[in-house]
Amino acid sequence: MSNQKLFHVAVVGATGAVGEQIIRLLETRDFPIEKLTLLSSERSAGTKLTFKGNDITVKAATPDSFKGVDIALFSAGGGVSLELIPHAISHGAVCIDNTSAYRMDPDTPLVVPEVNIDRINEHKGVIANPNCSTIQMVAALKPLYDRYGISRIIVSTYQAVSGAGSRAIDEMLRQSKEILAGNTVEPQILPVGALPVKHQIAFNAIPQIDKFTENGFTYEEMKMINETKKILGDDSLEVTATCVRIPVVYGHSESVYVEMKQDFDLEEVKQLLADAPGIVLQDNPAEQQYPLAADAAGKLETFVGRVRRDLSNPRGLNMWIVSDNLLKGAAWNAVQIAEYIAIEQK
Amino acid sequence: MSNQKLFHVAVVGATGAVGEQIIRLLETRDFPIEKLTLLSSERSAGTKLTFKGNDITVKAATPDSFKGVDIALFSAGGGVSLELIPHAISHGAVCIDNTSAYRMDPDTPLVVPEVNIDRINEHKGVIANPNCSTIQMVAALKPLYDRYGISRIIVSTYQAVSGAGSRAIDEMLRQSKEILAGNTVEPQILPVGALPVKHQIAFNAIPQIDKFTENGFTYEEMKMINETKKILGDDSLEVTATCVRIPVVYGHSESVYVEMKQDFDLEEVKQLLADAPGIVLQDNPAEQQYPLAADAAGKLETFVGRVRRDLSNPRGLNMWIVSDNLLKGAAWNAVQIAEYIAIEQK
Repeated sequence: MSNQKLFHVAVVGATGAVGEQIIRLLETRDFPIEKLTLLSSERSAGTKLTFKGNDITVKAATPDSFKGVDIALFSAGGGVSLELIPHAISHGAVCIDNTSAYRMDPDTPLVVPEVNIDRINEHKGVIANPNCSTIQMVAALKPLYDRYGISRIIVSTYQAVSGAGSRAIDEMLRQSKEILAGNTVEPQILPVGALPVKHQIAFNAIPQIDKFTENGFTYEEMKMINETKKILGDDSLEVTATCVRIPVVYGHSESVYVEMKQDFDLEEVKQLLADAPGIVLQDNPAEQQYPLAADAAGKLETFVGRVRRDLSNPRGLNMWIVSDNLLKGAAWNAVQIAEYIAIEQK
Repeated sequence: MSNQKLFHVAVVGATGAVGEQIIRLLETRDFPIEKLTLLSSERSAGTKLTFKGNDITVKAATPDSFKGVDIALFSAGGGVSLELIPHAISHGAVCIDNTSAYRMDPDTPLVVPEVNIDRINEHKGVIANPNCSTIQMVAALKPLYDRYGISRIIVSTYQAVSGAGSRAIDEMLRQSKEILAGNTVEPQILPVGALPVKHQIAFNAIPQIDKFTENGFTYEEMKMINETKKILGDDSLEVTATCVRIPVVYGHSESVYVEMKQDFDLEEVKQLLADAPGIVLQDNPAEQQYPLAADAAGKLETFVGRVRRDLSNPRGLNMWIVSDNLLKGAAWNAVQIAEYIAIEQK
């Protein structure tokens, strides 16, 4: 890596759950960094974070924070992205946005490196990171899509509370302790912080992630539907989704049913998955081996198992897809994109 | 209820999670009981249980336990049912079996009262109670099946640990406490007590309920597939299922996708569900109202919400179905059947 170009990298939302993971990954991946600027809201500014043994003071993000920045990773909410990304672009930064702000913008590439890294150079200053539940699903489906074609996807998710931020994790753990002690709980955060009605998440399953749209689906479900079509570049793909929060801290699980356009060989399906980049096949019923959220936590890969043919439709396939929602579902996918940008620009 | 015939009722598996609920329901429903015989394994014999203020000593179940018994409710495992039900029948008892032993026997009616109570009189001494996850699904789908026809069902479950018995509940709560205290856990019961590999259930999701069959589906999944066809009396119905255990104590949730044989009106679907026996429609996204396992626990009804049309298939419908797996999923369905028998024989 000698003579490699070094980059001035900014992390916006540095004190959040995803921001923390991004900083850790930039460190462990030894990203070619010349300078690291950590940005946050006014409220969190002044926090000191450690990067490669040095303390860095987090500053409040403003339009002027991006002077000299080469790559800016945003995960501070859609409003912050919409406000600050135009300024970052005008200062010459390439932005990687973890929020939903730019995902469906036709001029913005929506990238999962294992699926469509070829779109990365089409960017006009911003590359969008897909929704966590979408990323792991399309990463696992891509080799099957390429080989057989996929006509429809029916997915039900089992999503971790960390997807709703650190306060949701705290709430779930606190509720669990209270209920185990025989006390009642007063839900305050989940399912959606900005909405009035709160539900118990400990020892429960909440079929609402994000707000509802007018068609009865939630925004989370619409993200899975629309982003999957955009990433695979296939508007004819039929997708339906039910997104559910369960009392797990890290790791989204998904029960995915797909219909292929062609007949498939089940052993070939497993081999395609085993050989796919970023995918680990964990599928041995005889040994009770299949992906588990608790095992996937902290890992970068997407794990796939319970791969079996639908007994009523020979072109139907059931599978179980698990990945760490803060890593491949957010921070790692963003840092992967940053690594590709670094390679392109070196 | 004067001059009503009174029955000698036996409960086999009286000390188990389902047996306890059966006894409580016989009590609260004021079932016309002349004598209540409580039976269990040798190990649990001698336990004293209370029924309407009187202590009843649980006896070890033997082939001779059924002399004079009119109605026997079995929930002590498939092996016990296969061994003792023939003796109970020979003593003249009508048996209601909560295990899988007789469910797929062509001579045995498999009954959900809201769906096919008309089959009850076809019995040859035993009426089978379906699997918990099947009961709540067919109860909710029946009005739609009758009105529009259903061609296929794709279901993913979120099942409570109580479905695996009291020891599984204890294990989940114990593991939760240990993990909250920062300790590691040593799984001992779940996913399947009789199998060698154990997985953590606290703060996790395990995509295995019951053993695996050779086709890659678990027995639980095959029960949902085969029992649904039998109860609805429709072998052409296409069903696929993924059954998952989550850290919930009571209440199974199900993400169900169905394809109707005819076009449907969504408001009519909701009205059919609201009017269906045993079903409560909880479906108001604007108020964040939908069924929750924690709310369904302890209730007899099946709760349905998140009812919405698939955006890609106008005959596709997504819904979320929740019920207490020990009540409608087991004890209550069995006691409902017993109530119909009592009415028939009075």
